Amino acid sequence: MALKKKPVTGMKDMLPREMEIRDYVIQMIKDTYRTFGFSSMETPCVEHIENLLSKQGGENEQLIFKILKRGAKLNLETASCEADLVDGGLRYDLTLPLSRYYANHANELPSPFKALQIGNVWRADRPQRGRFRQFMQCDIDILGEASNLAEIELILATSTLLGKLDFKNFTIRINDRRILKAMAAYSGFPEDSYDEVFIILDKMDKIGLEGVETELKEAGYGQEKVDKYLELFKEVTNDLAGIRYLKEKLGSFLDQEVADGLSMIISSVEETKEAEFKMSFDPTLVRGMSYYTGTIFEISMDEFGGSVGGGGRYDKMIGKFTGQETPACGFSIGFERIVMLLLESGYQVPTQKEKKAFLIEKGMPEQGIVKILALAKEEREQGKQVMIANMKKNKKFQKEQLAQEGYTDVKECFVREFLPEE
Amino acid sequence: MALKKKPVTGMKDMLPREMEIRDYVIQMIKDTYRTFGFSSMETPCVEHIENLLSKQGGENEQLIFKILKRGAKLNLETASCEADLVDGGLRYDLTLPLSRYYANHANELPSPFKALQIGNVWRADRPQRGRFRQFMQCDIDILGEASNLAEIELILATSTLLGKLDFKNFTIRINDRRILKAMAAYSGFPEDSYDEVFIILDKMDKIGLEGVETELKEAGYGQEKVDKYLELFKEVTNDLAGIRYLKEKLGSFLDQEVADGLSMIISSVEETKEAEFKMSFDPTLVRGMSYYTGTIFEISMDEFGGSVGGGGRYDKMIGKFTGQETPACGFSIGFERIVMLLLESGYQVPTQKEKKAFLIEKGMPEQGIVKILALAKEEREQGKQVMIANMKKNKKFQKEQLAQEGYTDVKECFVREFLPEE
Repeated sequence: MALKKKPVTGMKDMLPREMEIRDYVIQMIKDTYRTFGFSSMETPCVEHIENLLSKQGGENEQLIFKILKRGAKLNLETASCEADLVDGGLRYDLTLPLSRYYANHANELPSPFKALQIGNVWRADRPQRGRFRQFMQCDIDILGEASNLAEIELILATSTLLGKLDFKNFTIRINDRRILKAMAAYSGFPEDSYDEVFIILDKMDKIGLEGVETELKEAGYGQEKVDKYLELFKEVTNDLAGIRYLKEKLGSFLDQEVADGLSMIISSVEETKEAEFKMSFDPTLVRGMSYYTGTIFEISMDEFGGSVGGGGRYDKMIGKFTGQETPACGFSIGFERIVMLLLESGYQVPTQKEKKAFLIEKGMPEQGIVKILALAKEEREQGKQVMIANMKKNKKFQKEQLAQEGYTDVKECFVREFLPEE
Repeated sequence: MALKKKPVTGMKDMLPREMEIRDYVIQMIKDTYRTFGFSSMETPCVEHIENLLSKQGGENEQLIFKILKRGAKLNLETASCEADLVDGGLRYDLTLPLSRYYANHANELPSPFKALQIGNVWRADRPQRGRFRQFMQCDIDILGEASNLAEIELILATSTLLGKLDFKNFTIRINDRRILKAMAAYSGFPEDSYDEVFIILDKMDKIGLEGVETELKEAGYGQEKVDKYLELFKEVTNDLAGIRYLKEKLGSFLDQEVADGLSMIISSVEETKEAEFKMSFDPTLVRGMSYYTGTIFEISMDEFGGSVGGGGRYDKMIGKFTGQETPACGFSIGFERIVMLLLESGYQVPTQKEKKAFLIEKGMPEQGIVKILALAKEEREQGKQVMIANMKKNKKFQKEQLAQEGYTDVKECFVREFLPEE
């Protein structure tokens, strides 16, 4: 037969060992975020193609898995371009569908609405190690809360979750788009150059201050602007003093409330956090998504080179659906990276209950089977994981296999023990 | 803006109230099936189009959401038919992907392999009340177990789950494809007419014995065959005696082991079941999927007209991928119907923890916020669900809204109480 055994390119079959960790992490996410007042919600995996291509998704719009029209709507004869052929696509993130959902259901939802979404998203990226074309995202968002309470709760909830999964000594870096802009404005960059400047600034951790200087000059910006800009980064520190420095230095370029708000978020989180981590002000943090309007944040972990989560405020996006601006702020954890780190570290799921196996000798009469089922029932009612299997010829190998799955308590059931009473 | 607010046709946004029940049912499924030794596994939602169209899926193959090729592989100029345009599709069930998965990973999996899958599937069905184009399926399958232990464990696990969700007095009807065939053979129907005969027989519960007689005759079958066939259904009972009757009557048309096996499954389950339900032998049970080879079963519930789950043995399917036959048996519960029944009955999720809300008066200084966050932290550490929100002008309305969400314990935090100590 010509059936294909491998999963489709770039996607992944999940084996039981990985699923055990995934299930555990998902349950921990639900339990933890629930204590912070987040409610589960879900949107369909398929989204209107018009919404997916509405320029909210940046580069992800190039990576959409598109869905063919069906039935009479599909006309190959007259179709002259892709748009004639498709009417939907698989969502590439959970933020755009959340905006649509909120626009559709705002009057059925509390305000503020604290949403928890756990779901797959799809991007037709070039396949590479550890990155898949279907992957799970896990987002919390607070819609309708303009104050910094949103940022504080999002950061506390996320860090508490990571702490419960035994992650320590991570850093949550925070910045504000408005600080980014004020620093550029103060240095004399014209507004239409910000995007380019920030793309270069974003490389600071890789190419350093000198590299940024070189690239800015290569992009044609004058020495004076570049010097003034980099001077700020030389002086600023990654703490509350750094924010105070910028607040003074940038003067009227920066709304004082922005600086005060950022300080307040950092100090409130530091004083009430549960997990072992630190907050760090990072004026070089850019984050790519164009929809952010205020605070932006990202989780860095020493064990793992890159970011394991991030988010920020996007106050303008929901208005694009509703016509009415709604403050919004979200935090997404890198579910797949977290699972990968746990898998690679040999993480043992702590809730794992005792496992017991019954092996049934060949020829067991029905009464014997019933007795074994009754024994298993008792154990199962206590929450124990019970396997019942027919004894194989190579019993030693069978028991080794069961032990690998964690069934160390094996009861061999021989026919002679289970013969019906006379 | 032209953004669309509604979900795509036939698919559904999940509101928090429904999600609470869905999350609860999913957790109960995982907990219960785990005690029966099932392991979670997952396949990608996207499957090779060749596999989806391999004639395993019957009518579902007409309902596939197909995915457009991407990049250089897509050539609109030269495409003359749909097949030139697509390379994948959304899975329409979990059984076909399970077969591919097992073929791909058999040497990494235990034998027998007890698999639990919970996942969305997609079918471009005509939209109708209560049926959606994206819906959750929940399947357990035992691969590599030829004995009736598979059927017994599947039925016990599924019925135990339903019992834990407070369903009572349901019936699990069971039959065997080989009994269906033996009854038709005994009555003189030629083998190539079985499919047509069974489609008519399947309507027994709607059109009755007389209706079946009429339709069989209309289809051109002779009076003698039809009489002989219907005589069997008049005499047979829905219990072990019914199976004994057929065993004698059908003689060499029916393998005696099939009848004995079915009796053994029914009596073993009856003697060891945990939930309140009954097993019923139903020789009119057909089930549509063409891949079943042996036992077939279905759950009927009085509260709900139709089936809320079903399954059976499909010993030939995995061989189509691997070239090596592997015994397989599965049971799928109607997740969406179960959720719908629970929702409509006003089901209260029993694990719901206490909920507490803090309302913060406008103008609260940072020290006050920190104190409130610390109070919330204590409650959250005890597993309580805690909402922190800014007090609104219409506090009465806000508290009513919170009460609707279950936040009846509301602490109002006034600035005067939380002033910093001098």
